[in-house]
Amino acid sequence: MSQVGADFFASHRQLLEEAVAATKTRGYYSAFPESPSPRVYGESAAADGANAFEAWLGTDFPLSTPGAAGVVATEKSPFGKPVGVRYPRVTTDGVPALVEAAAAGMRTWRDAGIEARVGVGLEILKRLHARVFEIANSVQHTSGQAFVMAFQAGGAHALDRALESVAYAYAEMTRVPATAIWQKPGRDAPIRMEKTFTVVPRGVALVVGCNTFPTWNSWPGLFASLVTGNPVIVKPHPGAVLPLAITVQVCQEVLAEAGFDTNLVTLAAEDPVDEVAAVLAVRPEVKLIDFTGSNAFGEWLEDNARQAIVYTEKAGVNAVVIDSTDSFKGMCFNLAFSLSLYTGQMCTAPQNLYLPAGGIETDDGHKSVEDVIAGLEAAFGKLVGDDARAVELLGGVVNDGVLERLTQVGSAGTVVIASREVTHPAFPEAVVRTPAVAVLDIADSSTYENECFGPVAYLIKAGSTAESVETFRRTAIERGAMTASVYSTREDVIASMRSAALDAGVALSENLTGQVFVNQSAAFSDFHGTGANPASNATFTDGAYVASRFRFIQSRRHI
Amino acid sequence: MSQVGADFFASHRQLLEEAVAATKTRGYYSAFPESPSPRVYGESAAADGANAFEAWLGTDFPLSTPGAAGVVATEKSPFGKPVGVRYPRVTTDGVPALVEAAAAGMRTWRDAGIEARVGVGLEILKRLHARVFEIANSVQHTSGQAFVMAFQAGGAHALDRALESVAYAYAEMTRVPATAIWQKPGRDAPIRMEKTFTVVPRGVALVVGCNTFPTWNSWPGLFASLVTGNPVIVKPHPGAVLPLAITVQVCQEVLAEAGFDTNLVTLAAEDPVDEVAAVLAVRPEVKLIDFTGSNAFGEWLEDNARQAIVYTEKAGVNAVVIDSTDSFKGMCFNLAFSLSLYTGQMCTAPQNLYLPAGGIETDDGHKSVEDVIAGLEAAFGKLVGDDARAVELLGGVVNDGVLERLTQVGSAGTVVIASREVTHPAFPEAVVRTPAVAVLDIADSSTYENECFGPVAYLIKAGSTAESVETFRRTAIERGAMTASVYSTREDVIASMRSAALDAGVALSENLTGQVFVNQSAAFSDFHGTGANPASNATFTDGAYVASRFRFIQSRRHI
Repeated sequence: MSQVGADFFASHRQLLEEAVAATKTRGYYSAFPESPSPRVYGESAAADGANAFEAWLGTDFPLSTPGAAGVVATEKSPFGKPVGVRYPRVTTDGVPALVEAAAAGMRTWRDAGIEARVGVGLEILKRLHARVFEIANSVQHTSGQAFVMAFQAGGAHALDRALESVAYAYAEMTRVPATAIWQKPGRDAPIRMEKTFTVVPRGVALVVGCNTFPTWNSWPGLFASLVTGNPVIVKPHPGAVLPLAITVQVCQEVLAEAGFDTNLVTLAAEDPVDEVAAVLAVRPEVKLIDFTGSNAFGEWLEDNARQAIVYTEKAGVNAVVIDSTDSFKGMCFNLAFSLSLYTGQMCTAPQNLYLPAGGIETDDGHKSVEDVIAGLEAAFGKLVGDDARAVELLGGVVNDGVLERLTQVGSAGTVVIASREVTHPAFPEAVVRTPAVAVLDIADSSTYENECFGPVAYLIKAGSTAESVETFRRTAIERGAMTASVYSTREDVIASMRSAALDAGVALSENLTGQVFVNQSAAFSDFHGTGANPASNATFTDGAYVASRFRFIQSRRHI
Repeated sequence: MSQVGADFFASHRQLLEEAVAATKTRGYYSAFPESPSPRVYGESAAADGANAFEAWLGTDFPLSTPGAAGVVATEKSPFGKPVGVRYPRVTTDGVPALVEAAAAGMRTWRDAGIEARVGVGLEILKRLHARVFEIANSVQHTSGQAFVMAFQAGGAHALDRALESVAYAYAEMTRVPATAIWQKPGRDAPIRMEKTFTVVPRGVALVVGCNTFPTWNSWPGLFASLVTGNPVIVKPHPGAVLPLAITVQVCQEVLAEAGFDTNLVTLAAEDPVDEVAAVLAVRPEVKLIDFTGSNAFGEWLEDNARQAIVYTEKAGVNAVVIDSTDSFKGMCFNLAFSLSLYTGQMCTAPQNLYLPAGGIETDDGHKSVEDVIAGLEAAFGKLVGDDARAVELLGGVVNDGVLERLTQVGSAGTVVIASREVTHPAFPEAVVRTPAVAVLDIADSSTYENECFGPVAYLIKAGSTAESVETFRRTAIERGAMTASVYSTREDVIASMRSAALDAGVALSENLTGQVFVNQSAAFSDFHGTGANPASNATFTDGAYVASRFRFIQSRRHI
C-alpha cells in the first residue's frame, strides 16, 4: 500500500528488532545517545539546534490545523526568554472539524498494514533525533529544565521511551500472524481453513501534554496510538507547545512522504480559557486518551470520557523510608540531588522522608535527626551552593503555583533547610530556587499526605522504621505514589519495604547512594508509573499500555 | 512458597508450552478431545459421569460460601428433568463478608509466584477434564444444549478456551523477566543494578455467568484472573449453577492441596430477586469483572462498576450477506444448521440474512428468493424433520422469553418457514422447537436492527448486494455483531465485505458450505468477540484480555 512506508520499515528493521529484544530482557538499552557532546553529535550540532530554536521565536509556526481559527501564543519561558511563537488556535467551535479531519485518513492508514505504520513511526523518531538540539532548547525554554536535562529527558530519553512504545506495539500487533492455516483432523480428510487477522484501530486518539515534560510524557502514547492505526490529536499544555509543534511537524512531513493524510497527527493548541481538551475528550470519535497532569483533570477524564480508554499519569506522594545506611554521605548526596533536580518539579521526586525520631545507624556512627539534616544541608551546599552550578541542576520554576507552595512551607512544618533565590548567570530574569526541607511529626498526616508539587520535602519523625513503612504503605494506597525508596542495611527492613511496595503498587529503589536517582526511570528497563495505585492507571511501557489500542479482526475461509 | 504448586507446574509444563506456541501460530490446536466416544474416554466414562451428575440432583451441594445464609435452588432443566440442587445462598447482606473472605488469601497467592499459580490453574483444568462427562450432563440440563454439544462446547472446547486464557496470561506475565541486570556504561566503570519485577493482582475479580454457556463463557475470565493473582467470586446465572458449582469445587480442592486459601475461588449463588451481582460489581475491592449476558446489565456494569475493568460479551445482530454461491445445497445446509444449532440460542447465531430481491446466481442456476426459501426448507427438513434426530441438534428452549419471541415472529414479517414443536423421545417434558424464518424488506430496519435471541431468522430482500453489505456495516457499527458471514463467488464482493467487517469490527466467515459453522469459534485460532463493536468490549483470548489483569511492580538496587 505504501512503498515508502515499507522502505522506512526495512531501513529501521534492525533498530526495531533490537528494541523488541530489549523490552524482553529489560537490561540496559538506549538507541539515542544521551550526551550532547560534540564528540557524539558533531561540532555544529549544538549551535545549529539553538539557531533553529531561535528562528521560531516570535513567528507563526508553520502548521495548519483543521478547524483552527486565528492564532494563539501562550508560552512563557521560566528562564525569562521571550518565546512568543504563534500556533493555529483551536477553540471548542473548531473541534468537530478537527475530529472529522483526523478521522479522514484512518482507513487508509489501517489498510497500509503494520509494517508501513511502524516504518513511518520509526522514521519520525529518526527525524526527531536529527532535530534533538532544537527540541532540547524548546523543552528548556518551556518547561524550565536546564539544558542538559532538557537534552536528555526531553530529547534522547524521550526518544528511547517512544521507541520502547513502538517496540511494544509492534510486538503486540505481530503476536498474531497476518495469516494462519487451520487444519483440523477429520474423519475422511482434514478440514482446512485460511484465517486472516487484521489490526484495526480503535478510533481517534487524544494526547494531552503537560508543562514539565512535554515530550517524554507525550511521546509514548502518541507513538503507541499512531502505529496501531489511530489518528492522533496532540493537545499540548499551553505553557509547552513548541516541543509538540515540532513533533507534529515531523510527523506530518513523514506521513506526507509516505503518501498518507497529514492530518493523522494534528496539533490542537489552545488558549487555556477555551478548555478544548475537555471538549475533545468526550467526542464519540475519540477512543483513546493519554493524559499527564493534575489529579483533578485526570480524574475528570476517567469519570467523563467514558467512550474512550483513558491512560492517566497524575500525581502522588512519593516516599523515602530511612532506616540505616552504609554510606551516610552517599545517601545525603543522593537525596539532595533528587530533591534539587529540576527544582523537584518531577512527578517522581521524593516528598516524604520518614526516619525514626531517635535517629539512624550509619557507616559514620549513629546520626540523630539533626545530624541527618546537617548531612542533607552539606550535600545541598555542594550541589546548589554555587549559583552557576546550581542552575544547571535546578533549572527554572515552571509556574507561580510552585513558588507559592514554597513560600507556604513554613506554615506546614518547621523549616530546617530554607529555600534560596538563585541568580542565573545567563538569564537574569530566570526564576530559580533551591529546595526547602521542613520537619514534621508522624502525626502531621494532613500535611504530608497531600502532594506539594515542587521543591518541598518533609522530614517526618516516626516512632520506628516499622511505623515509617506502614505510613508509606497506607499513604501510597490512599493517595498514590510514582516512586518509593528505602535506605537500610537490614534485610528484614528491605523485605518489609518490598512487601509494602507490592501492596501499594509502587516501584521501589533500594539504597541509592550513587549516580542513580529515584526520580529517574530508564527506558526499556524501568517502568514509569505502575497503574496499581491512584497516581497513575498505566505504565510506560508494558503490554497493557499497548494491547487495547487496537483490535484483531479476523476473516476465514475454506481452502 | 508452594511446593505442590511448583510440582503441578512441572507436571503440566509441556502442555503449557504447547498451548503458548498455539496462541502464536493460531493454527489448529486442542488439548481436550472433543469426542465423547468410549474409544477416547473409556467404556465407563459416560455412565460414570451421568451417575455423578444424577447424584447431585435434589441434594445440598457441598460448598461453603462466606457470608451465605440458607440455601437456594433455582435451576430448571429445559428437558424437564427435575434438578433441585441446593447451593449456599448469598444475599446482599452477605456481600461484605464474601468480599473480605475472597481477598484474605490474595497476598499469599501473589507471593506464591507465577509458576505456582499457573500450576494450580492447569491442575484445575486437568481435574475438570476428569469430570467432563459430569460437567456435560450439568451443562445439558441447565442450558438445554443437547448432550454432544454440552460435552463439546460446555466441556472439551471450554477447557481449550480456558487453557488458551491461561497460556496468554502466562505469556504476558513472563514477558518481563523476574530479575534483570541493568548495566549502563559509565565514565570509569559501568553502573550496575539488579531489578526485580513482580506480578501483582488488581484485586478481587467477579465472574458473572450466563444461562446458555455457563462454562465456555465463564472459564476464560475465571482462569485469566485467577492465575494472574486475583481471587475470583463466581456469580452463576440462577438457571445454570451446577456447572460452575462443580468448577468452584474443583478449584477449592486444588487450592487446598497446594496450601492456599480455598476462598480464592467462591460461588455466589443467589435468588434472582436479590440482584447480588449488581451489589458485588460496585464493591471497591472488586477490580475485574467478566460478564456474559444481556445488553442491559452489560451496559449497566460498564456505566456503574467504575472501580473495575469490565469485560463484557453482550448481544448483537449477526448477519449473513448472500450474493452468490458455487454450492447452493452446501450453503442452504450450512445456514439451516447454524440456525438450528441449540435452537439459535447462541450469541454467534446468524439472524439477518440479506440477499438481493432479484435472487442469486448459484452452481444450480439462478435462484429467486422463493427458491432460496425452498432450499433452506429442504435443508431444515433433513436436519430437523425427524424428531429423534432434531433434538440432538436443537436441544431445548432455555427460557420463556425465547418461546415468546418465536410466537411473535409472525407480527414482524411474513413467516415463510414456520417453527415446529418437537417431541423429545427421552424427555417428554422437554420444550423443543425448530427455527422460524420470516421474510422482510430492507426497509423493515426497525425489526431486523434489534436482536431477536432464539431461533428466528430474517431473510431480508435488498436492492443489491452492495446494499446488503452497507446495511450490515451500518447495523453492526450501531448495534454490534458477534459474527458475520458472506456467500459470494465474486472477489470484489468478498473484498467489500471484508472491508465492511473491518470497519464494523466483526469477525467474518466466507463461503461456509461444509462442516464449519459461523456460530463456532475454535480456541487458539478464532477469536470470539472482537471488542471493536457494541456486542462485546473484549475478545477471547488475546493480549488485551489478560494484560490489564495484573501489574508489574519493580524494585531495584545496585550490585
